[in-house]
Amino acid sequence: MTTTRVLSVPSAKAPFEKTTIQRRELQPNDVLISVKYSGICHSDIHSAYDEWEGGIFPMVPGHEIAGIVQAVGSSVSKFNVGDRVGVGCFVDSCGECEYCLNDEEQYCTKGVVQTYNSIGYDGNPTYGGYSQNIVVQESFVVRIPDALALDVASPLLCAGITTYSPLKHWNAGPGKRVAIVGVGGLGHLAIQYTHALGAEVTVLSRSEDKKAEALSFGADHYYATSDSATFTELAGEFDLILNTVSANLDVDAYLSLLRVNGTLVNVGAPAEPDRYNVFSLLTGRRSIAGSLVGGIKETQEMLDFSAQHGIVPKIEVIHADQIEEAYERVLKSDVRYRFVIDASTL
Amino acid sequence: MTTTRVLSVPSAKAPFEKTTIQRRELQPNDVLISVKYSGICHSDIHSAYDEWEGGIFPMVPGHEIAGIVQAVGSSVSKFNVGDRVGVGCFVDSCGECEYCLNDEEQYCTKGVVQTYNSIGYDGNPTYGGYSQNIVVQESFVVRIPDALALDVASPLLCAGITTYSPLKHWNAGPGKRVAIVGVGGLGHLAIQYTHALGAEVTVLSRSEDKKAEALSFGADHYYATSDSATFTELAGEFDLILNTVSANLDVDAYLSLLRVNGTLVNVGAPAEPDRYNVFSLLTGRRSIAGSLVGGIKETQEMLDFSAQHGIVPKIEVIHADQIEEAYERVLKSDVRYRFVIDASTL
Repeated sequence: MTTTRVLSVPSAKAPFEKTTIQRRELQPNDVLISVKYSGICHSDIHSAYDEWEGGIFPMVPGHEIAGIVQAVGSSVSKFNVGDRVGVGCFVDSCGECEYCLNDEEQYCTKGVVQTYNSIGYDGNPTYGGYSQNIVVQESFVVRIPDALALDVASPLLCAGITTYSPLKHWNAGPGKRVAIVGVGGLGHLAIQYTHALGAEVTVLSRSEDKKAEALSFGADHYYATSDSATFTELAGEFDLILNTVSANLDVDAYLSLLRVNGTLVNVGAPAEPDRYNVFSLLTGRRSIAGSLVGGIKETQEMLDFSAQHGIVPKIEVIHADQIEEAYERVLKSDVRYRFVIDASTL
Repeated sequence: MTTTRVLSVPSAKAPFEKTTIQRRELQPNDVLISVKYSGICHSDIHSAYDEWEGGIFPMVPGHEIAGIVQAVGSSVSKFNVGDRVGVGCFVDSCGECEYCLNDEEQYCTKGVVQTYNSIGYDGNPTYGGYSQNIVVQESFVVRIPDALALDVASPLLCAGITTYSPLKHWNAGPGKRVAIVGVGGLGHLAIQYTHALGAEVTVLSRSEDKKAEALSFGADHYYATSDSATFTELAGEFDLILNTVSANLDVDAYLSLLRVNGTLVNVGAPAEPDRYNVFSLLTGRRSIAGSLVGGIKETQEMLDFSAQHGIVPKIEVIHADQIEEAYERVLKSDVRYRFVIDASTL
């Protein structure tokens, strides 16, 4: 067992505490990782506040983990001590179902074991990346290319793959017109990926505030959705709209921006149901879809692609003591664009 | 000009009147069709009652038209007098946009001219199939194979193509598990097409009432949706769900029946918006989509496929004087499964 320092939430909405937990004894296929940086994802807040219910407390959030391999189990073949590695949103899956066999473990029939706030197949709760160490099976660990600094690499493990995977799945690329809704932790990465994949990128953001930055990330066009003229001007324009906003949208208005056969893909989930008029779908054989992170193989591909194209998030590194303040600022959308905890301050 | 007998609605919700209208002088590319049978589609009722607003009155509904070519314009090359032909939901499109050029005129950028309740590119209103004659450009007329009787062929022009097109588009075929929601005018054809395309067909209907008939149409399985156990038993089962019901459904419940990457396709449109929880999409990269009839080329393909596989609707042929009664019975779902007007009774 390894004792490790963590930031833990004792109960729903309670303030974080600096404390320690035990990590499991290294199993033959396990890797012990010295966590260097851990990104703060909006879903950490939903979980810590138990907004999705069923939260397991005490809770150690964090599923955007970047660090260095500190020890390896006796059967580990993929990693050596000193390797730069990452861990994303899940740490186990059945390995036998058609989805696991197809490298899409996120859709495992048995259900993946989330990196935190989940019960492992061994019956023990999982604790995440707001921690100085974590033990993970090697098959759920990815390699961080040398070209990516560990601090900026950490948010890629969730925000990066969450946007990269649907862009690949729905064939964002040359000749395609893609809109990215929202310029936040996810959106600012989505713009970069879409541009690097060769598609024409239009950003749809509430106001004009983020225009200069969006263009610097590679956007070809930028429109404020607070201006209703945007929706007439862009009618029938896009092959794909990637919605990175978790709030409820006027779904019909966004569907009207799609070409025939176009798809509106959601990667965030508002707490309340969305509404749509079926006519909005019928009239252009349009689709509304959702996408959930990505498999381990694709996560590695995303990291390699990010390194190759110089795609990194814009981050603000914080001290562990700033966690409450950071959560408040995320809730106010007052971060450009991702907080990352320096694990040495835990 | 040709004077023709019709069933006409003078104003929204007013009773039908037997009267006459003028059809336009035959243009070089026009075909004059002697209508033999005209199917009654639920959308005729929505239009005649002006439930979708903007109705053009007097209105002659009908877009499921089967008849015989009575005369041809000087440039017509595709048809001869005496040919057995059909006309579906639209009678003109721009012919130049990418969708028209791709044989998907139903999604024409300029907007198709509907067979009735529409303004033609010549500025004149269109009048539909509850009529003894109709004049249509040859490129919007399809050939009815000899193997299909004209009375049963008529509903294929809307109900047939509306279900055939999405089944083809979403690759219903061998190895695929497809659910058909609803056993009505559309559903009973969808079952037959899905079966003929080689997919495994499950019918989801409110009660057990239509089980025997659904199985006779080629369903492999039948479940009543009034039994909540249906939704647990069939969780994650289908690649494709084709919803032929126009009422609002519990969308999340149906999405839960889809496999990863599965799609729920709507071909009917309820008046009120549908609601869904985005999580239902995310957790399996699922989609909600819509589909609108089909292009002329695909409509011909559907008729040929129907003839080849012996697929026809089950119909009740009515006298023109029974139109009000027929509408009432459609609204009560008291028809198995499509009313067809005998045009000789007009």
